[in-house]
Amino acid sequence: MKLVSYQHTGQDSYGAIVGDGVVDLGRLYGARAPDLKAFIAADLFADASTRIAQAQVALPLSEVTLLPVIPNPGKILCVGLNYGEHIRETGKTVTEKPVIFLRVASSQVASGDDIVHPRVSEQLDYEGEIAIVIGQGGRHIAEADAWPHIAGYSCYNDGSVRDWQFHTSQWGPGKNFWKTGAFGPWMVSADEIAPDQTMTLVTRLNGQELQRATTDMMVHSIPRLIAYISTFVPLEAGDVIVTGTPGGVGSKRTPPVFMKPGDVCEVEVDAIGTLRNGIRAE
Amino acid sequence: MKLVSYQHTGQDSYGAIVGDGVVDLGRLYGARAPDLKAFIAADLFADASTRIAQAQVALPLSEVTLLPVIPNPGKILCVGLNYGEHIRETGKTVTEKPVIFLRVASSQVASGDDIVHPRVSEQLDYEGEIAIVIGQGGRHIAEADAWPHIAGYSCYNDGSVRDWQFHTSQWGPGKNFWKTGAFGPWMVSADEIAPDQTMTLVTRLNGQELQRATTDMMVHSIPRLIAYISTFVPLEAGDVIVTGTPGGVGSKRTPPVFMKPGDVCEVEVDAIGTLRNGIRAE
Repeated sequence: MKLVSYQHTGQDSYGAIVGDGVVDLGRLYGARAPDLKAFIAADLFADASTRIAQAQVALPLSEVTLLPVIPNPGKILCVGLNYGEHIRETGKTVTEKPVIFLRVASSQVASGDDIVHPRVSEQLDYEGEIAIVIGQGGRHIAEADAWPHIAGYSCYNDGSVRDWQFHTSQWGPGKNFWKTGAFGPWMVSADEIAPDQTMTLVTRLNGQELQRATTDMMVHSIPRLIAYISTFVPLEAGDVIVTGTPGGVGSKRTPPVFMKPGDVCEVEVDAIGTLRNGIRAE
Repeated sequence: MKLVSYQHTGQDSYGAIVGDGVVDLGRLYGARAPDLKAFIAADLFADASTRIAQAQVALPLSEVTLLPVIPNPGKILCVGLNYGEHIRETGKTVTEKPVIFLRVASSQVASGDDIVHPRVSEQLDYEGEIAIVIGQGGRHIAEADAWPHIAGYSCYNDGSVRDWQFHTSQWGPGKNFWKTGAFGPWMVSADEIAPDQTMTLVTRLNGQELQRATTDMMVHSIPRLIAYISTFVPLEAGDVIVTGTPGGVGSKRTPPVFMKPGDVCEVEVDAIGTLRNGIRAE
Protein backbone atom coordinates (compact mmCIF):
# COMPACT_ATOMS: atom_id res chain seq x y z
CA MET A 1 0.00 0.00 0.00
CA LYS A 2 1.24 3.49 -0.90
CA LEU A 3 0.13 6.09 1.64
CA VAL A 4 0.30 9.87 1.18
CA SER A 5 -0.44 12.94 3.27
CA TYR A 6 -1.94 15.74 1.24
CA GLN A 7 -3.98 18.90 1.11
CA HIS A 8 -7.15 19.16 -0.99
CA THR A 9 -9.48 22.16 -1.13
CA GLY A 10 -7.66 23.65 1.84
CA GLN A 11 -8.07 20.57 4.06
CA ASP A 12 -5.26 18.33 5.29
CA SER A 13 -5.91 14.62 4.83
CA TYR A 14 -4.18 11.38 3.90
CA GLY A 15 -4.98 8.42 1.78
CA ALA A 16 -3.96 5.39 -0.21
CA ILE A 17 -2.90 5.56 -3.83
CA VAL A 18 -4.93 3.43 -6.24
CA GLY A 19 -3.86 3.80 -9.86
CA ASP A 20 -3.76 7.53 -10.62
CA GLY A 21 -6.00 8.41 -7.72
CA VAL A 22 -6.03 8.59 -3.96
CA VAL A 23 -8.69 7.14 -1.65
CA ASP A 24 -9.33 9.65 1.16
CA LEU A 25 -8.68 7.70 4.35
CA GLY A 26 -8.76 10.85 6.48
CA ARG A 27 -12.45 11.28 5.70
CA LEU A 28 -13.09 7.56 6.09
CA TYR A 29 -11.60 7.29 9.57
CA GLY A 30 -12.39 10.81 10.82
CA ALA A 31 -11.59 11.35 14.50
CA ARG A 32 -10.50 7.71 14.82
CA ALA A 33 -7.37 8.47 12.78
CA PRO A 34 -7.26 12.12 11.69
CA ASP A 35 -3.78 11.94 10.16
CA LEU A 36 -1.35 9.35 8.81
CA LYS A 37 0.56 9.24 12.11
CA ALA A 38 -2.67 8.33 13.93
CA PHE A 39 -3.52 5.77 11.21
CA ILE A 40 -0.13 4.11 11.76
CA ALA A 41 -0.51 4.25 15.55
CA ALA A 42 -3.93 2.56 15.29
CA ASP A 43 -2.48 -0.06 12.89
CA LEU A 44 -5.30 0.32 10.39
CA PHE A 45 -3.40 -1.16 7.43
CA ALA A 46 -5.40 -4.39 7.18
CA ASP A 47 -8.71 -2.61 7.74
CA ALA A 48 -7.84 -0.02 5.11
CA SER A 49 -6.95 -2.70 2.55
CA THR A 50 -10.48 -4.03 2.67
CA ARG A 51 -12.03 -0.60 2.48
CA ILE A 52 -9.82 0.53 -0.38
CA ALA A 53 -10.83 -2.52 -2.40
CA GLN A 54 -14.47 -1.47 -1.95
CA ALA A 55 -13.94 2.25 -2.51
CA GLN A 56 -15.81 3.74 -5.44
CA VAL A 57 -14.31 7.20 -5.38
CA ALA A 58 -10.72 8.27 -5.68
CA LEU A 59 -9.44 11.82 -6.09
CA PRO A 60 -7.12 12.23 -9.06
CA LEU A 61 -3.61 12.36 -7.60
CA SER A 62 -2.92 15.34 -9.86
CA GLU A 63 -5.53 17.38 -7.97
CA VAL A 64 -4.03 17.09 -4.50
CA THR A 65 -1.04 18.92 -3.04
CA LEU A 66 1.26 16.48 -1.30
CA LEU A 67 2.50 17.12 2.24
CA PRO A 68 5.62 15.58 3.79
CA VAL A 69 4.70 11.89 4.27
CA ILE A 70 4.42 12.40 8.02
CA PRO A 71 3.82 16.16 8.40
CA ASN A 72 3.97 16.05 12.22
CA PRO A 73 6.43 13.37 13.33
CA GLY A 74 7.21 13.22 17.04
CA LYS A 75 10.87 13.11 16.07
CA ILE A 76 13.09 12.89 13.01
CA LEU A 77 16.34 11.05 13.70
CA CYS A 78 18.98 11.35 10.99
CA VAL A 79 22.00 9.13 10.54
CA GLY A 80 25.33 10.56 9.42
CA LEU A 81 28.26 8.82 7.76
CA ASN A 82 26.52 5.50 7.11
CA TYR A 83 28.02 4.57 3.70
CA GLY A 84 31.73 3.86 3.19
CA GLU A 85 32.17 6.04 0.10
CA HIS A 86 30.63 9.04 1.87
CA ILE A 87 32.79 8.47 4.94
CA ARG A 88 35.90 8.40 2.72
CA GLU A 89 34.96 11.52 0.73
CA THR A 90 34.48 13.49 3.98
CA GLY A 91 37.84 12.32 5.33
CA LYS A 92 36.20 10.65 8.34
CA THR A 93 36.49 7.12 9.67
CA VAL A 94 33.85 4.51 10.41
CA THR A 95 32.45 4.89 13.93
CA GLU A 96 31.56 1.90 16.06
CA LYS A 97 28.25 3.58 16.92
CA PRO A 98 25.89 5.33 14.48
CA VAL A 99 26.16 9.12 14.15
CA ILE A 100 22.74 10.52 15.10
CA PHE A 101 21.45 14.08 14.76
CA LEU A 102 17.95 15.55 14.74
CA ARG A 103 15.74 17.50 12.38
CA VAL A 104 12.66 19.52 13.30
CA ALA A 105 9.39 19.10 11.41
CA SER A 106 9.39 22.65 10.04
CA SER A 107 12.58 21.88 8.12
CA GLN A 108 10.60 19.48 5.89
CA VAL A 109 8.94 19.86 2.46
CA ALA A 110 6.81 17.51 0.40
CA SER A 111 7.60 16.01 -2.96
CA GLY A 112 6.56 18.51 -5.63
CA ASP A 113 7.07 21.44 -3.29
CA ASP A 114 10.21 23.54 -3.63
CA ILE A 115 13.25 23.16 -1.43
CA VAL A 116 14.09 26.69 -0.28
CA HIS A 117 17.57 27.99 -1.06
CA PRO A 118 18.48 30.18 1.94
CA ARG A 119 19.50 33.75 1.40
CA VAL A 120 22.44 33.49 3.83
CA SER A 121 24.36 30.70 2.07
CA GLU A 122 25.50 29.50 -1.35
CA GLN A 123 26.20 25.98 -0.05
CA LEU A 124 22.87 24.14 -0.23
CA ASP A 125 23.76 20.49 -0.84
CA TYR A 126 21.62 17.41 -1.61
CA GLU A 127 21.75 14.13 0.31
CA GLY A 128 19.60 11.33 -1.12
CA GLU A 129 18.49 8.89 1.60
CA ILE A 130 15.97 6.22 2.52
CA ALA A 131 13.58 7.09 5.36
CA ILE A 132 11.89 4.54 7.55
CA VAL A 133 8.66 5.31 9.39
CA ILE A 134 8.11 3.63 12.74
CA GLY A 135 4.88 1.72 13.29
CA GLN A 136 4.73 -0.06 16.61
CA GLY A 137 6.85 1.91 19.06
CA GLY A 138 9.13 0.60 21.74
CA ARG A 139 12.22 0.99 23.87
CA HIS A 140 15.25 -1.28 24.02
CA ILE A 141 14.24 -3.02 20.80
CA ALA A 142 16.72 -5.81 20.04
CA GLU A 143 18.25 -5.91 16.55
CA ALA A 144 16.64 -9.28 15.95
CA ASP A 145 13.20 -7.86 16.75
CA ALA A 146 13.51 -4.60 14.80
CA TRP A 147 11.88 -5.25 11.41
CA PRO A 148 8.28 -5.55 12.67
CA HIS A 149 8.56 -2.03 14.16
CA ILE A 150 8.75 -0.50 10.67
CA ALA A 151 5.48 0.76 9.19
CA GLY A 152 6.97 1.72 5.84
CA TYR A 153 9.64 3.34 3.71
CA SER A 154 10.00 6.59 1.83
CA CYS A 155 12.62 8.73 0.07
CA TYR A 156 14.33 11.67 1.78
CA ASN A 157 16.57 14.50 0.63
CA ASP A 158 18.46 15.59 3.75
CA GLY A 159 19.24 19.03 2.25
CA SER A 160 22.27 20.45 4.06
CA VAL A 161 23.61 23.99 4.24
CA ARG A 162 27.29 23.11 4.50
CA ASP A 163 28.81 26.34 5.84
CA TRP A 164 26.20 26.48 8.60
CA GLN A 165 26.60 22.73 9.28
CA PHE A 166 30.24 23.34 10.15
CA HIS A 167 29.96 26.63 12.09
CA THR A 168 30.69 24.50 15.17
CA SER A 169 31.11 20.80 15.98
CA GLN A 170 27.32 20.28 16.05
CA TRP A 171 25.53 20.02 12.70
CA GLY A 172 22.07 21.19 13.84
CA PRO A 173 21.93 24.59 12.15
CA GLY A 174 23.00 23.37 8.69
CA LYS A 175 20.57 20.45 8.90
CA ASN A 176 17.53 22.46 9.96
CA PHE A 177 17.10 25.31 7.53
CA TRP A 178 13.46 25.99 6.76
CA LYS A 179 12.14 23.73 3.98
CA THR A 180 15.36 21.92 3.15
CA GLY A 181 14.45 18.34 4.11
CA ALA A 182 12.31 16.75 1.39
CA PHE A 183 10.23 13.72 2.42
CA GLY A 184 8.10 11.75 -0.02
CA PRO A 185 6.40 11.26 -2.32
CA TRP A 186 4.64 8.53 -0.32
CA MET A 187 5.26 5.76 2.17
CA VAL A 188 5.33 2.18 0.86
CA SER A 189 3.99 -0.03 3.64
CA ALA A 190 6.41 -2.55 5.07
CA ASP A 191 4.44 -5.58 3.85
CA GLU A 192 5.55 -4.71 0.30
CA ILE A 193 9.29 -4.58 1.07
CA ALA A 194 10.85 -7.68 2.59
CA PRO A 195 13.16 -7.30 5.61
CA ASP A 196 16.71 -6.83 4.36
CA GLN A 197 15.52 -6.48 0.74
CA THR A 198 18.27 -4.64 -1.12
CA MET A 199 17.01 -1.30 -2.41
CA THR A 200 18.84 0.92 -4.88
CA LEU A 201 19.05 4.64 -4.18
CA VAL A 202 19.87 7.20 -6.89
CA THR A 203 20.13 10.99 -6.61
CA ARG A 204 19.91 13.18 -9.71
CA LEU A 205 20.37 16.93 -10.05
CA ASN A 206 18.87 18.36 -13.25
CA GLY A 207 18.78 14.83 -14.64
CA GLN A 208 22.43 14.03 -13.93
CA GLU A 209 23.08 11.07 -11.65
CA LEU A 210 25.26 12.12 -8.71
CA GLN A 211 24.70 9.40 -6.11
CA ARG A 212 24.02 5.65 -6.44
CA ALA A 213 24.13 3.00 -3.77
CA THR A 214 22.36 -0.07 -2.49
CA THR A 215 21.12 -0.51 1.04
CA ASP A 216 23.41 -3.50 1.68
CA MET A 217 26.25 -0.95 1.66
CA MET A 218 25.06 0.69 4.89
CA VAL A 219 27.64 0.60 7.68
CA HIS A 220 24.95 0.36 10.37
CA SER A 221 21.99 -1.70 9.14
CA ILE A 222 18.38 -0.64 9.64
CA PRO A 223 17.82 -3.11 12.54
CA ARG A 224 21.01 -1.87 14.20
CA LEU A 225 19.86 1.75 13.90
CA ILE A 226 16.50 0.90 15.49
CA ALA A 227 18.22 -0.97 18.30
CA TYR A 228 20.72 1.81 18.99
CA ILE A 229 18.20 4.66 18.88
CA SER A 230 15.59 2.87 20.98
CA THR A 231 18.19 2.39 23.70
CA PHE A 232 18.19 6.10 24.46
CA VAL A 233 14.72 7.22 23.43
CA PRO A 234 11.36 5.44 23.08
CA LEU A 235 10.35 5.11 19.43
CA GLU A 236 6.74 6.01 18.66
CA ALA A 237 4.40 5.56 15.73
CA GLY A 238 5.20 8.07 12.99
CA ASP A 239 8.77 8.69 14.09
CA VAL A 240 11.11 8.98 11.13
CA ILE A 241 14.64 7.57 10.84
CA VAL A 242 16.61 8.92 7.89
CA THR A 243 19.26 6.31 7.23
CA GLY A 244 22.21 8.24 5.78
CA THR A 245 23.51 9.33 2.39
CA PRO A 246 25.91 7.52 0.05
CA GLY A 247 29.01 9.00 -1.55
CA GLY A 248 28.78 11.72 -4.16
CA VAL A 249 27.50 14.72 -2.21
CA GLY A 250 27.96 18.03 -4.00
CA SER A 251 30.29 19.72 -1.53
CA LYS A 252 32.94 16.98 -1.96
CA ARG A 253 32.98 17.10 -5.77
CA THR A 254 35.69 18.85 -7.79
CA PRO A 255 34.53 21.46 -8.49
CA PRO A 256 31.80 21.47 -5.82
CA VAL A 257 28.19 21.18 -7.00
CA PHE A 258 25.57 23.09 -4.99
CA MET A 259 21.83 23.38 -5.60
CA LYS A 260 20.67 26.70 -7.03
CA PRO A 261 17.28 28.27 -7.61
CA GLY A 262 15.76 26.72 -10.75
CA ASP A 263 17.43 23.33 -10.26
CA VAL A 264 15.46 20.10 -9.89
CA CYS A 265 16.65 17.40 -7.52
CA GLU A 266 15.34 13.82 -7.54
CA VAL A 267 15.87 10.98 -5.09
CA GLU A 268 14.74 7.66 -6.54
CA VAL A 269 14.52 4.37 -4.67
CA ASP A 270 13.56 1.42 -6.89
CA ALA A 271 11.20 -0.16 -4.37
CA ILE A 272 9.56 3.15 -3.44
CA GLY A 273 9.37 5.80 -6.17
CA THR A 274 10.82 9.22 -6.93
CA LEU A 275 10.95 12.28 -4.67
CA ARG A 276 11.20 15.36 -6.89
CA ASN A 277 11.77 18.96 -5.79
CA GLY A 278 12.51 22.19 -7.54
CA ILE A 279 14.78 24.66 -5.79
CA ARG A 280 13.62 28.25 -5.26
CA ALA A 281 15.21 31.29 -3.70
CA GLU A 282 14.02 32.25 -0.21
CA MET B 1 2.80 35.94 36.12
CA LYS B 2 3.93 32.39 36.89
CA LEU B 3 2.45 29.84 34.49
CA VAL B 4 2.48 26.06 34.93
CA SER B 5 1.37 23.04 32.93
CA TYR B 6 -0.04 20.30 35.12
CA GLN B 7 -2.20 17.25 35.46
CA HIS B 8 -5.12 17.14 37.88
CA THR B 9 -7.57 14.24 38.27
CA GLY B 10 -6.15 12.68 35.13
CA GLN B 11 -6.65 15.78 32.97
CA ASP B 12 -3.89 17.89 31.43
CA SER B 13 -4.30 21.62 31.94
CA TYR B 14 -2.33 24.77 32.68
CA GLY B 15 -2.77 27.75 34.89
CA ALA B 16 -1.41 30.74 36.76
CA ILE B 17 0.03 30.50 40.24
CA VAL B 18 -1.62 32.71 42.84
CA GLY B 19 -0.19 32.28 46.33
CA ASP B 20 -0.20 28.56 47.10
CA GLY B 21 -2.78 27.80 44.44
CA VAL B 22 -3.20 27.62 40.70
CA VAL B 23 -6.02 29.20 38.70
CA ASP B 24 -7.08 26.75 35.96
CA LEU B 25 -6.67 28.67 32.72
CA GLY B 26 -7.14 25.56 30.61
CA ARG B 27 -10.74 25.28 31.77
CA LEU B 28 -11.24 29.04 31.45
CA TYR B 29 -10.11 29.24 27.83
CA GLY B 30 -11.18 25.76 26.67
CA ALA B 31 -10.79 25.21 22.95
CA ARG B 32 -9.58 28.79 22.49
CA ALA B 33 -6.29 27.86 24.19
CA PRO B 34 -6.24 24.20 25.27
CA ASP B 35 -2.60 24.21 26.43
CA LEU B 36 0.07 26.68 27.51
CA LYS B 37 1.62 26.72 24.05
CA ALA B 38 -1.74 27.79 22.56
CA PHE B 39 -2.18 30.38 25.37
CA ILE B 40 1.20 31.87 24.45
CA ALA B 41 0.43 31.77 20.71
CA ALA B 42 -2.85 33.62 21.34
CA ASP B 43 -1.04 36.15 23.57
CA LEU B 44 -3.60 35.90 26.35
CA PHE B 45 -1.32 37.28 29.09
CA ALA B 46 -3.15 40.60 29.56
CA ASP B 47 -6.56 38.98 29.34
CA ALA B 48 -5.54 36.33 31.88
CA SER B 49 -4.25 38.97 34.32
CA THR B 50 -7.72 40.46 34.58
CA ARG B 51 -9.41 37.09 34.93
CA ILE B 52 -6.95 35.86 37.54
CA ALA B 53 -7.61 38.94 39.66
CA GLN B 54 -11.32 38.09 39.61
CA ALA B 55 -10.89 34.33 40.09
CA GLN B 56 -12.51 32.95 43.21
CA VAL B 57 -11.21 29.41 42.97
CA ALA B 58 -7.68 28.16 42.91
CA LEU B 59 -6.52 24.56 43.18
CA PRO B 60 -3.91 24.01 45.90
CA LEU B 61 -0.59 23.74 44.08
CA SER B 62 0.18 20.71 46.26
CA GLU B 63 -2.71 18.81 44.65
CA VAL B 64 -1.57 19.03 41.05
CA THR B 65 1.16 17.06 39.29
CA LEU B 66 3.37 19.39 37.31
CA LEU B 67 4.20 18.71 33.67
CA PRO B 68 7.22 20.11 31.80
CA VAL B 69 6.43 23.84 31.41
CA ILE B 70 5.72 23.35 27.71
CA PRO B 71 4.92 19.63 27.38
CA ASN B 72 4.65 19.75 23.58
CA PRO B 73 7.12 22.32 22.20
CA GLY B 74 7.51 22.44 18.43
CA LYS B 75 11.25 22.37 19.03
CA ILE B 76 13.79 22.47 21.82
CA LEU B 77 17.04 24.16 20.81
CA CYS B 78 19.93 23.72 23.21
CA VAL B 79 23.08 25.80 23.34
CA GLY B 80 26.43 24.20 24.10
CA LEU B 81 29.60 25.80 25.44
CA ASN B 82 28.11 29.20 26.27
CA TYR B 83 29.98 30.05 29.51
CA GLY B 84 33.76 30.57 29.63
CA GLU B 85 34.42 28.37 32.64
CA HIS B 86 32.55 25.45 31.05
CA ILE B 87 34.42 25.93 27.77
CA ARG B 88 37.75 25.85 29.66
CA GLU B 89 36.87 22.76 31.75
CA THR B 90 35.97 20.84 28.57
CA GLY B 91 39.23 21.86 26.88
CA LYS B 92 37.36 23.59 24.05
CA THR B 93 37.67 27.12 22.68
CA VAL B 94 35.09 29.86 22.23
CA THR B 95 33.31 29.54 18.87
CA GLU B 96 32.33 32.59 16.83
CA LYS B 97 28.86 31.05 16.33
CA PRO B 98 26.71 29.41 19.01
CA VAL B 99 26.83 25.62 19.32
CA ILE B 100 23.26 24.38 18.73
CA PHE B 101 21.84 20.89 19.20
CA LEU B 102 18.31 19.60 19.60
CA ARG B 103 16.27 17.74 22.18
CA VAL B 104 13.01 15.88 21.60
CA ALA B 105 9.97 16.44 23.81
CA SER B 106 9.96 12.89 25.18
CA SER B 107 13.37 13.49 26.77
CA GLN B 108 11.76 15.98 29.18
CA VAL B 109 10.45 15.68 32.75
CA ALA B 110 8.66 18.11 35.03
CA SER B 111 9.87 19.56 38.28
CA GLY B 112 9.01 17.12 41.05
CA ASP B 113 9.13 14.18 38.68
CA ASP B 114 12.18 11.92 38.69
CA ILE B 115 14.98 12.17 36.19
CA VAL B 116 15.53 8.60 34.96
CA HIS B 117 19.01 7.13 35.37
CA PRO B 118 19.49 4.91 32.31
CA ARG B 119 20.39 1.29 32.74
CA VAL B 120 23.07 1.43 30.02
CA SER B 121 25.30 4.10 31.56
CA GLU B 122 26.85 5.24 34.83
CA GLN B 123 27.58 8.74 33.47
CA LEU B 124 24.38 10.73 33.99
CA ASP B 125 25.50 14.34 34.50
CA TYR B 126 23.59 17.51 35.47
CA GLU B 127 23.69 20.80 33.55
CA GLY B 128 21.83 23.68 35.18
CA GLU B 129 20.56 26.17 32.60
CA ILE B 130 18.08 28.96 31.95
CA ALA B 131 15.37 28.22 29.37
CA ILE B 132 13.57 30.85 27.37
CA VAL B 133 10.15 30.23 25.89
CA ILE B 134 9.32 31.96 22.61
CA GLY B 135 6.14 34.03 22.39
CA GLN B 136 5.74 35.82 19.10
CA GLY B 137 7.48 33.76 16.45
CA GLY B 138 9.52 34.97 13.54
CA ARG B 139 12.36 34.41 11.11
CA HIS B 140 15.45 36.54 10.63
CA ILE B 141 14.87 38.33 13.93
CA ALA B 142 17.55 41.00 14.44
CA GLU B 143 19.44 41.02 17.73
CA ALA B 144 18.06 44.46 18.50
CA ASP B 145 14.49 43.21 18.06
CA ALA B 146 14.84 39.93 19.97
CA TRP B 147 13.61 40.65 23.53
CA PRO B 148 9.91 41.11 22.65
CA HIS B 149 9.88 37.60 21.13
CA ILE B 150 10.36 36.05 24.59
CA ALA B 151 7.21 34.93 26.42
CA GLY B 152 8.99 33.89 29.58
CA TYR B 153 11.80 32.14 31.43
CA SER B 154 12.21 28.87 33.26
CA CYS B 155 14.89 26.59 34.74
CA TYR B 156 16.28 23.59 32.86
CA ASN B 157 18.47 20.65 33.77
CA ASP B 158 19.98 19.48 30.48
CA GLY B 159 20.76 16.02 31.88
CA SER B 160 23.50 14.45 29.78
CA VAL B 161 24.65 10.86 29.47
CA ARG B 162 28.31 11.56 28.82
CA ASP B 163 29.54 8.28 27.32
CA TRP B 164 26.62 8.27 24.85
CA GLN B 165 27.14 11.99 24.13
CA PHE B 166 30.63 11.21 22.89
CA HIS B 167 29.99 7.95 21.00
CA THR B 168 30.48 10.04 17.85
CA SER B 169 30.98 13.72 16.99
CA GLN B 170 27.25 14.42 17.33
CA TRP B 171 25.83 14.77 20.83
CA GLY B 172 22.22 13.75 20.05
CA PRO B 173 22.09 10.36 21.78
CA GLY B 174 23.60 11.54 25.10
CA LYS B 175 21.29 14.56 25.14
CA ASN B 176 18.07 12.70 24.40
CA PHE B 177 17.76 9.88 26.88
CA TRP B 178 14.21 9.36 28.04
CA LYS B 179 13.29 11.67 30.93
CA THR B 180 16.65 13.32 31.41
CA GLY B 181 15.83 16.94 30.54
CA ALA B 182 14.07 18.62 33.47
CA PHE B 183 12.04 21.75 32.65
CA GLY B 184 10.27 23.82 35.29
CA PRO B 185 8.85 24.36 37.77
CA TRP B 186 7.01 27.19 35.96
CA MET B 187 7.49 29.94 33.43
CA VAL B 188 7.87 33.49 34.71
CA SER B 189 6.36 35.78 32.08
CA ALA B 190 8.74 38.19 30.40
CA ASP B 191 7.05 41.31 31.82
CA GLU B 192 8.48 40.35 35.23
CA ILE B 193 12.11 40.05 34.08
CA ALA B 194 13.64 43.09 32.40
CA PRO B 195 15.59 42.60 29.15
CA ASP B 196 19.23 41.98 30.02
CA GLN B 197 18.42 41.66 33.74
CA THR B 198 21.25 39.69 35.31
CA MET B 199 19.99 36.41 36.71
CA THR B 200 21.96 34.10 39.00
CA LEU B 201 21.92 30.36 38.28
CA VAL B 202 22.90 27.77 40.89
CA THR B 203 22.94 23.96 40.59
CA ARG B 204 22.95 21.79 43.71
CA LEU B 205 23.26 18.01 44.00
CA ASN B 206 22.05 16.65 47.34
CA GLY B 207 22.27 20.19 48.70
CA GLN B 208 25.85 20.81 47.64
CA GLU B 209 26.40 23.74 45.29
CA LEU B 210 28.21 22.58 42.13
CA GLN B 211 27.51 25.34 39.61
CA ARG B 212 27.04 29.10 40.00
CA ALA B 213 26.99 31.77 37.32
CA THR B 214 25.25 34.93 36.25
CA THR B 215 23.66 35.45 32.85
CA ASP B 216 25.99 38.33 31.98
CA MET B 217 28.71 35.65 31.71
CA MET B 218 27.11 34.05 28.62
CA VAL B 219 29.39 34.04 25.57
CA HIS B 220 26.44 34.41 23.18
CA SER B 221 23.73 36.62 24.71
CA ILE B 222 20.06 35.71 24.60
CA PRO B 223 19.30 38.23 21.78
CA ARG B 224 22.23 36.85 19.80
CA LEU B 225 20.95 33.28 20.22
CA ILE B 226 17.49 34.29 18.99
CA ALA B 227 18.99 36.10 16.00
CA TYR B 228 21.25 33.19 15.05
CA ILE B 229 18.63 30.47 15.44
CA SER B 230 15.90 32.39 13.62
CA THR B 231 18.22 32.77 10.64
CA PHE B 232 17.96 29.05 9.89
CA VAL B 233 14.57 28.10 11.29
CA PRO B 234 11.36 30.03 11.98
CA LEU B 235 10.76 30.40 15.72
CA GLU B 236 7.22 29.66 16.87
CA ALA B 237 5.22 30.23 20.03
CA GLY B 238 6.18 27.67 22.68
CA ASP B 239 9.59 26.88 21.21
CA VAL B 240 12.22 26.46 23.90
CA ILE B 241 15.80 27.71 23.82
CA VAL B 242 18.01 26.24 26.55
CA THR B 243 20.84 28.73 26.91
CA GLY B 244 23.83 26.66 28.04
CA THR B 245 25.43 25.50 31.27
CA PRO B 246 28.16 27.19 33.36
CA GLY B 247 31.33 25.55 34.62
CA GLY B 248 31.23 22.83 37.24
CA VAL B 249 29.61 19.91 35.44
CA GLY B 250 30.12 16.57 37.18
CA SER B 251 32.09 14.78 34.49
CA LYS B 252 34.88 17.39 34.62
CA ARG B 253 35.34 17.28 38.41
CA THR B 254 38.15 15.41 40.15
CA PRO B 255 36.95 12.84 40.98
CA PRO B 256 33.96 12.96 38.60
CA VAL B 257 30.49 13.41 40.14
CA PHE B 258 27.60 11.64 38.43
CA MET B 259 23.94 11.53 39.43
CA LYS B 260 22.76 8.25 40.97
CA PRO B 261 19.39 6.83 41.93
CA GLY B 262 18.29 8.46 45.19
CA ASP B 263 20.06 11.77 44.53
CA VAL B 264 18.21 15.09 44.36
CA CYS B 265 19.28 17.74 41.88
CA GLU B 266 18.16 21.37 42.03
CA VAL B 267 18.56 24.18 39.52
CA GLU B 268 17.74 27.55 41.09
CA VAL B 269 17.49 30.86 39.25
CA ASP B 270 16.91 33.82 41.54
CA ALA B 271 14.37 35.53 39.29
CA ILE B 272 12.48 32.31 38.54
CA GLY B 273 12.47 29.66 41.28
CA THR B 274 13.81 26.17 41.88
CA LEU B 275 13.57 23.13 39.63
CA ARG B 276 13.90 20.04 41.82
CA ASN B 277 14.19 16.41 40.68
CA GLY B 278 14.95 13.14 42.33
CA ILE B 279 16.89 10.58 40.36
CA ARG B 280 15.51 7.06 39.97
CA ALA B 281 16.77 3.95 38.25
CA GLU B 282 15.18 3.06 34.92
